[in-house]
Parts: sequence; C-alpha cells; structure tokens
Amino acid sequence: MKCLIIAAGKGSRLQQRGDSKPLIPLLGIPLIERVIRAAMEAGAEEFFVVIGYQGERVRNFLERLADRLAIRITPLVNDDWDQENGLSVLKAREVLHQPFLLLMADHLFDPKLIQPLTSLNLGDGELALVVDGNTRNPLVDLEDVTRVKVESKKIRDIGKGLDDFNGFDTGIFLCSPAIFKALEQSKEKDGDTTLSGAVRVLAAEGRAKAALMDDGFWIDVDDPAAFQKAEQALLTRLRDKPNDGPVARYLNRPLSVRMSRYLVQRNITPNQISLFSFLCSVLAAGLFMLGGYIALLLGGVLAQFASIIDGCDGEVARLKYQSSDVGGWFDAVLDRYADAFLLFGLTWHLLAVEANGWILLAGFMAIIGSFMLSYTADKYDKMMRERLQAGGKAGLRMGRDVRVFLIFLGAVTNLVLPVLVLIAVVMNIETLRRVKMALDGQH
Amino acid sequence: MKCLIIAAGKGSRLQQRGDSKPLIPLLGIPLIERVIRAAMEAGAEEFFVVIGYQGERVRNFLERLADRLAIRITPLVNDDWDQENGLSVLKAREVLHQPFLLLMADHLFDPKLIQPLTSLNLGDGELALVVDGNTRNPLVDLEDVTRVKVESKKIRDIGKGLDDFNGFDTGIFLCSPAIFKALEQSKEKDGDTTLSGAVRVLAAEGRAKAALMDDGFWIDVDDPAAFQKAEQALLTRLRDKPNDGPVARYLNRPLSVRMSRYLVQRNITPNQISLFSFLCSVLAAGLFMLGGYIALLLGGVLAQFASIIDGCDGEVARLKYQSSDVGGWFDAVLDRYADAFLLFGLTWHLLAVEANGWILLAGFMAIIGSFMLSYTADKYDKMMRERLQAGGKAGLRMGRDVRVFLIFLGAVTNLVLPVLVLIAVVMNIETLRRVKMALDGQH
Repeated sequence: MKCLIIAAGKGSRLQQRGDSKPLIPLLGIPLIERVIRAAMEAGAEEFFVVIGYQGERVRNFLERLADRLAIRITPLVNDDWDQENGLSVLKAREVLHQPFLLLMADHLFDPKLIQPLTSLNLGDGELALVVDGNTRNPLVDLEDVTRVKVESKKIRDIGKGLDDFNGFDTGIFLCSPAIFKALEQSKEKDGDTTLSGAVRVLAAEGRAKAALMDDGFWIDVDDPAAFQKAEQALLTRLRDKPNDGPVARYLNRPLSVRMSRYLVQRNITPNQISLFSFLCSVLAAGLFMLGGYIALLLGGVLAQFASIIDGCDGEVARLKYQSSDVGGWFDAVLDRYADAFLLFGLTWHLLAVEANGWILLAGFMAIIGSFMLSYTADKYDKMMRERLQAGGKAGLRMGRDVRVFLIFLGAVTNLVLPVLVLIAVVMNIETLRRVKMALDGQH
Repeated sequence: MKCLIIAAGKGSRLQQRGDSKPLIPLLGIPLIERVIRAAMEAGAEEFFVVIGYQGERVRNFLERLADRLAIRITPLVNDDWDQENGLSVLKAREVLHQPFLLLMADHLFDPKLIQPLTSLNLGDGELALVVDGNTRNPLVDLEDVTRVKVESKKIRDIGKGLDDFNGFDTGIFLCSPAIFKALEQSKEKDGDTTLSGAVRVLAAEGRAKAALMDDGFWIDVDDPAAFQKAEQALLTRLRDKPNDGPVARYLNRPLSVRMSRYLVQRNITPNQISLFSFLCSVLAAGLFMLGGYIALLLGGVLAQFASIIDGCDGEVARLKYQSSDVGGWFDAVLDRYADAFLLFGLTWHLLAVEANGWILLAGFMAIIGSFMLSYTADKYDKMMRERLQAGGKAGLRMGRDVRVFLIFLGAVTNLVLPVLVLIAVVMNIETLRRVKMALDGQH
C-alpha cells in the first residue's frame, strides 16, 4: 500500500525543540521516522511525503532514511506550507491514483489502529477515518483537537468547533483519489482549504466512513505538553511486558524505563547496554569473592543495579526500532554467565570462611538450578501459553529478576548461605515441576 | 489419498517368525504397521487392507491400530488368498473409484519414494510404479524380484523371468481404477491373475508409467535373509544423524544401535531409557566423589556407558514411531543435569585431595562452559545451517558426546584436572566464538 504523509507545516509551538517539526527527535527518533515505521509495520510499502517549511532538511533526512530502511520515499514540495493542510494533500494528486493511507507527520499512533481501515471495503469515491470514540482520552488536547460526529459508522460532521460530537479525528485516513476532487470542491464552494473541509464534502454525500475505536494509542504532538505526554505514553507501553516477573514489574522496570529515557538520547546500542550490565555483574561477583561484609554489600547493590540496567537493552531496542533476535540472544547468553558468576562469587565468599562440602553443594545446586530454569523456559513458556488458552492455571513465574533480587537481599542481610540454599531448592524444584508438566501433557 | 494394501498371503518362508506375515514384528513393529505408517507419512489418509490367511488376527490388529492412530482402516476379505495377488487387488473394485496408492504389506520403504508418484500427473486409465533402477541393489533378491523394462518413462515389460530388464518392481503403485479392468482382461486373455499380468496389459497400451529412482530404500521382506537385511537397513539409517559429533558417530552410535535392536523388542519407552541413562550418570558422579582411582575409573566407564545408552532413547523412538518434542526436551534437560553432576563429581574428587581455589574455578568454568555450549546450540545450529547453505565453513562440532568422552578419558588416565581445564577452556571459547559469529552476522 502507498502512504502519503503531510510534513509541510512549521509547528511553531514546538520550535524550542528543533527547527523542523518532523525532524524533532522523540525518545531518540524523529517524529516522521516514527510515523513511517508505524505505517511500515501496518503494511505500507511506498511513501510520499509533502514537505514545506525547512523542506531541504526534511528531504535530506528522508533520503538517508529511505536508504537505511530500503524503502522508496518520494518528497512532494508544497511552497504554500503556511496555509491550510488541504493544499498539501492536493500536491499528491498526480502521483496517487489508487486508495492510499494518509497520515500526519506529527501524529504518533499504534500500528494496530490501521488494521480496521485496511480491512474496510473502501468503495470508489469514499474515504475512511480512524475516529477515537474515547472523548475522555487524556492524551487529547480538547481545545485543539478536530472533533467528529459519527452516526451508523459514517462521519456526519467534522470540525474543531463542533459542539455535538462523539469522537476525535486521529489524522489516520484511508483515502480514495476522490479526496482530491473533494478538496477542490470545498475550496470553490466555501473557500475552505482544510482537509476537514474536504471530509465534510464527502460526508455530506455519505461517502466518509468512520472506523470507531476507543482504546488505541495515538497522540497529536503539537506542543511541549503533548510532546511530554507522548514520551510518557511510549515509555509506559514498555512496562507492559507479560513475561516480566514480579521484581521486574514492580521494581526494575519502573527504574530501567527512566534510564532508557536518558539512554535513547545517546548513541548507545542495546548490545552495549547488555555488555555493560554483564560487566557490572562480573564486578559484583568479584566483590563477593573479596570477602568481608562491605564488599558483599557493595556487590549485592551492584548486582541489583546490573539487573535493572539489564532491562534497558530491550527497552532502548524497542524505542529505537533496533530489536533483533540476535540481540535478545546475546543478552540471554550474557545473563546466563552473569547469573553463574554471581552465584559462584557467593559460594566462594562462603568457602573462604569455611571450606565445607555442604556449602559447595549448595552453591553448585544453585548454579545448576538457575541455569536449568532458563534452559527450560522456552519450552515452558510455550506450554503455558497453550495451557492458559485452554483455561489452565499459571505456575510460579520465577525468572532472573527474582534470582538476582534474592542474591541482592542475601548480600545486604549477610545471609548468603540461606539464599544459596533457597535458590538451589526453589529453582530446581520449579525445573522439575516443569518437566513433570511436560511429561503429563505428553499423554 | 486412499491406500490399498495387500496383506492376504501366507508368507510361508517367514513362518518361523510368526503365524501371520503382516503381523510379524520387525524391530518391535509389525510389518503392516510399518507400511501403514510410511504411507501416512507420505500423505495417505484412509486405508483398505485385503486380508486372507489368518484374516481374523490381522483384522483384530488393524482395528486396534486404527484406534491408536485415529485413522480409518477397512478390511477386505479375499478367501482365495492362496492364489495370485491380482485377485486380492480385485477385492477393492467396489470401494475405490479414484486414483489410489497400492502397496504390499511385506514391502518396507522410505516414505519419500511415494512423492514422485503423487507428483506425477496420472491420466485416466493409467498406472504408475516406482521402479528401482539400481540393478545392483544389495537389498534385492535377484532370484525372486519382479523385473521391469523401462523405456522413456514407461513400463515396456514386467515379470519375474525377464532377461532384458533395467529395474525392479518395488511394489509401490499409484493406480487409477483402470487396474481392475486390466486384471479382468489379463485373466480372460492369458489366464494370468497376477498383478504383473494386469500391468502388462496396461503397458501394452502405453498406459503404465514408471517413476525410476536409484537410491531409495525399499525391501521385500520375503524370507529370513531379507528380514535380517531389512532390520540391518533400518538400524543403519539410525546412524545417519547429521547432528552427531565425532564420538557419537564413530564410537557411541555403532554401539547404541546394537542396544536399540535389543530394546525395541521390549516394552521400554524412550523416556525410560533417558531416565536410566541419567541415573547411570548420577551414579558415576557419586563414584567420582567417593575418591580413589578405582572409583574414579569405574565412574568414568559408567559415564561413557551412560553416554552410549543416551543414544538409544532417540533410536528406539524413531524405530517405534514414538518421537516427540517433549521426549527430546526431557532427554536434553536430563543431559544438562547429568553433565553438571559429572563435572561437579570430578571437581569434588580433586577438592577432597586439595582444597584449592584454582581447582574450584576450573570446575566451575567447566560446568558453566558445558552448559553454555548446550544453551547456545539451538541458535548456533540454525545459523550454521544458513551459513552452510550460503557456502560458509562449518565450525567445530563439540557436543555432549565429546564432553563425556573427555570425562571418561580423564577418569581412566587419572588426569582429572587437565580434563577439567580442557573442558573449561574449549567449551567457553567455543561459546564465545558462537556469540561473536552471531554478532558479526547481525551487521
């Protein structure tokens, strides 16, 4: 599918953050790149971007982006960028002859919102708009938003001043080329060159469909307040990871998200973060081996710090579209080494005081148990998803977050042996429970 | 696809192995079940089996088999089972009105042989036969086999006494219902009620196609010699595992295959074999911990024995059609525990003589290295397959077989520390190499 993006305006209310609004980085990625990435995820393959204010800079950026993402992006120039946005849409009249996606460079959104549009059966001469039916959406600036009145899945009216409305214009359109004619008509009839004017023309003829939704993410990044809300919304979405254990969810993730907000501004890759977290764990293990409570305490704190940092690699990868299988695997491999080093450090710490076979056995069983829990996790996760879909009960979630937190607690409280024994017992029992579950499911 | 199987004959030359030839177990599974399983693997969904000699016993078995495999098997009775096999085929005349697969209950074969048949575009009134073009196939009894003369992909002549031939009848047919008419014609014209007679009728009209192949596995299990050859062929095929390391390939597999030949005759599940192997490893680790060379030696031998036995679970599963994801996973989980226990046992053995931090470190690094090698294997194997397809070089294959063999050597030669250090170094370096390869491939 082809996609038209309007990126011509000046965006004066955000000028403090950068000269050209589409290029303002939000959590490390320019607004227009976020819009293009989201459209790509929803299936768009070729892009036309209407540029205007600071057009050369936007054009240069788009050229590099097209190379980087291996897609086609054609810039269309609108010299009347200081006038209404309908004129920008009209610039695409000669190049778009099939239904196309129409997006705004400053409207961020969840790619899932596009799906109901593309599954609509758009007739010739029609247009469809994603309308947010949640009129209390806290991300919407009620003063500035374009309001929509929807009746039986069609747009009845649209405009900023509307008193009778039941939804908001998200700026996510699926248009047939009829939009160009409607823009002309609106201009001739009412002297109205806004996109809303053209939608009104089509709506009057019953040709403007509405795809109503009420809990999808979208935001018009128009002023500093909206910019902050957008950042916050993207960061909050990072915390919604179903695989997170309790410590990750309630302790690590809130902290790591804050760090990620800072890290995305820097030129740091997710793999570098993984490596840094790993080195912190190795250092922590070294502190454990030094002996003495102070070193133990410092090691414990450092280990927990490394565990928090360990959330940032995935977060930064998601925020900067750098997620990869290999990256996730690299992180997992380093985590296994880190876990083993930490537990070995604790075992050494104890053995240095008293060379005792039971301590050695506890340390060994803790290391093997923590390994086995990770080793069995893939299979277990898959089984659990199937069980849960079939209405079964979830087992204990006991991942790395809990393991390192226990190490941290053991170090801080100087109760190292009990923690080693606890990890050894819990991790191995949980592993055996998984094996039993798998074998039970086999018959 | 429907499938007709001829299982009516007496098979007197195999009588010593069981009353009813189709029910004679070959490596634990009756011949007819092997044929049905192979046909299922090739896509057959509904079965008709012509029974005759000992028909009630065969019928009972097929009923239970249909339940067990959740398929439909309809028995067709041929009271003239002591006459030629064409009469058995005729029994299906009323039930088969579309092209169908025709197989012999005593011909075992690789399911892949069926594929060229089903991809043939069989015309109305035609028949196709898989012909073995390898006239030196050692599995073929040249005295007894039905010979075939093929010319430009068509059967020219067929018969046991043929002097001019270039292939063998494998007994794997794809028939249109025209076969029934051809059987009648052959009977009326020449008094010939063999299946070959009917094929000759169709061949004379240019309606008998040949799917010529020259290295597929098939065997007519007709007498004790062929029976032994068939067993040997199935066992040999077990040894052809591309994932086997050098020790597995040249030492363990030849021995484990011999044990599997024995085990399939017993009512032992693959999971029970996995568990037994694991318990042997635990016992070996216990012997290591006892101290002293004799215990060390015994432990080493037992560990290697466990490693050999560890091949049998998969072999028995393949021979008895009991392979499963969960079974493979169960084996892998037990292997990880077994590896860790063995290395821990060796470490303990050394520490009991001299409590030394370096020994502890070597043992720990050996345990973590052997774990990491298994942990990274899935990803690595996938990458390597892709690399090799792209013409890259294979890295070192260094799996569990090598690890346990090194442990065995270390115990036998009483060079435990060098072996621990070797495993620690080699396994961790190989892990790091894999990580480096993955990261290199990322860019």
